[in-house]
Amino acid sequence: MEVFSIGVDLGGSNLRVGAFTVRGERLKLIAFPTNAASGPAAVIDSMCEAIRVVHEELVATHEFAGVGVGSPGPLSLPDGVLHQPPNLPGWDGVELRREITERLPWPVWVNSDANMAALAECRLGAGAEYGVDSLCMITLGTGVGGGIVLDGHLWHGLNGAAGEVGHGPLILNGPPCACGARGCLEVYASATAVVRRARELNLVAATEAHSDEAGTQLNAAKLAQMAEAGDAVARSIYEQAGHALGLGLANLVNTLNLPLYTIGGGVSAAWNLFAPRMFATLEEFSYVYRMSQPRDPNQYEAGKTHICRARLGSDAGLLGAAMLPLVPRPLPRA
Amino acid sequence: MEVFSIGVDLGGSNLRVGAFTVRGERLKLIAFPTNAASGPAAVIDSMCEAIRVVHEELVATHEFAGVGVGSPGPLSLPDGVLHQPPNLPGWDGVELRREITERLPWPVWVNSDANMAALAECRLGAGAEYGVDSLCMITLGTGVGGGIVLDGHLWHGLNGAAGEVGHGPLILNGPPCACGARGCLEVYASATAVVRRARELNLVAATEAHSDEAGTQLNAAKLAQMAEAGDAVARSIYEQAGHALGLGLANLVNTLNLPLYTIGGGVSAAWNLFAPRMFATLEEFSYVYRMSQPRDPNQYEAGKTHICRARLGSDAGLLGAAMLPLVPRPLPRA
Repeated sequence: MEVFSIGVDLGGSNLRVGAFTVRGERLKLIAFPTNAASGPAAVIDSMCEAIRVVHEELVATHEFAGVGVGSPGPLSLPDGVLHQPPNLPGWDGVELRREITERLPWPVWVNSDANMAALAECRLGAGAEYGVDSLCMITLGTGVGGGIVLDGHLWHGLNGAAGEVGHGPLILNGPPCACGARGCLEVYASATAVVRRARELNLVAATEAHSDEAGTQLNAAKLAQMAEAGDAVARSIYEQAGHALGLGLANLVNTLNLPLYTIGGGVSAAWNLFAPRMFATLEEFSYVYRMSQPRDPNQYEAGKTHICRARLGSDAGLLGAAMLPLVPRPLPRA
Repeated sequence: MEVFSIGVDLGGSNLRVGAFTVRGERLKLIAFPTNAASGPAAVIDSMCEAIRVVHEELVATHEFAGVGVGSPGPLSLPDGVLHQPPNLPGWDGVELRREITERLPWPVWVNSDANMAALAECRLGAGAEYGVDSLCMITLGTGVGGGIVLDGHLWHGLNGAAGEVGHGPLILNGPPCACGARGCLEVYASATAVVRRARELNLVAATEAHSDEAGTQLNAAKLAQMAEAGDAVARSIYEQAGHALGLGLANLVNTLNLPLYTIGGGVSAAWNLFAPRMFATLEEFSYVYRMSQPRDPNQYEAGKTHICRARLGSDAGLLGAAMLPLVPRPLPRA
């Protein structure tokens, strides 16, 4: 019998439950609004009910490996406890893994949505395409998230906070960041950041309509259209994002020396607008990149540092969550 | 029979060959000037002769595990080829591992001196003391080097350049760095940097005597004495080093979320002069640190982020090189 797992993408607005094979083939999908305002218990009840429905449909014909859940962060790992998640207000302290485990008779893994996207990109996206099993994925969404996969497994760090590449000192005199620091990557390269900058610069057309999360992504896309059409101010906003990405990547390349860095999330659709400046800044600030630079930055070369757009789009988080039960466990240490 | 290995610390000035047990007990040591000017072939001949002498003395009573060599970087790994090492002029392109392997009948590992210090600190220094097997070590010497140990093993990255924490954008309008960037940690926190700053600020007493490598370390120590004695300008130089270290650590903590960061090298002796500012800056710029901050930054607390002075001093590189043949190999991947 073919093995399958169930992945859950618990978003602030929508909740998706999908069944997948090891190769990432989707067998079944249920999607519905999270309705976070109903509180953690009700949301987790609905989630577990959907998991049971999906399981029931497939278990006669497939072998079940378990449930993987990707959640908005921050959450501590491996216990899967949420810590004031900005996208799930009122969920502070929720012991997500315990809550799900108490409701379901199957093995349950919980991890952050940013880590899930990284795992999926490594196993089924750009990592699989290039045959590498280590990467750092940077997700440019409402915020900037990150995940690090080393030798095929997520690097969690001491308590699950590893890969917070959206935060940390980059441009010291930059704008304040929600994390309490200033000039983080997130205040330049998130959808929220490019839209905020457009408002500051009175690019009203791009930013008039929406102010919620979906609207922010939409406005970032509109701003990209303006830039593509030649608007100099809109272009400069994406160039600034590219500069910040180049600085952030320079630190990552010098520290981790990975073969692959993938950039995903809504803003990554504007790749052509920010990538040239990103590569120029990276080349200027990282001698490790210069030592392992491909002849063409947009062409993968084995043994060189490659930076590219993520492959899996908005399905990455769901796919990564489904991969959690399917990833072979790390062997015990010698 | 007890197992032993031979470690080599190939320095720009001195070469040391030592035999050690798994517990880091020294069985034998030979030290002599590197005489780098005589060229790679002559230096490697002398090194291998010393290794043979040490091996001959112990092999009747001990089981031999192999030879580990720590070399000035940069060098690519695992092949151990030097790339324009600033501390070994004329050694560009030397295939150090191959050269040694051709001269000796035993297994040979080659790695960078910064990585060797990190491995030793993890296996025999602060890591062993606190019972953790992952750390990042920052070495504040003539330059600023680094090494990352994850789950007991060095993280080399794509071609051995991982852990270059002395370089990368920190303070964008800072002084130029030898790596081609500006405002790297190395231009604030290396012995060379604090002495250069003292000269710029006309603290002549601290910097009049020596200009070679040993003199730079000596002058950094003199400058620390002036600061300890209350000299405000000398104090400000070490505070600036602490600020830069705090920024660098903020990026490392947010990216890697390790349990332990150790700071070694000559400048680390001035811990009391730079650590207060380092911790204040780290706390300001890293929310991951704030989430896992110990009550007292100078007291280790399990499950929290700890930053401390390295334990092993100038023997760290030699000890780490000796540990290379003794570290259990990573298991093959599942």
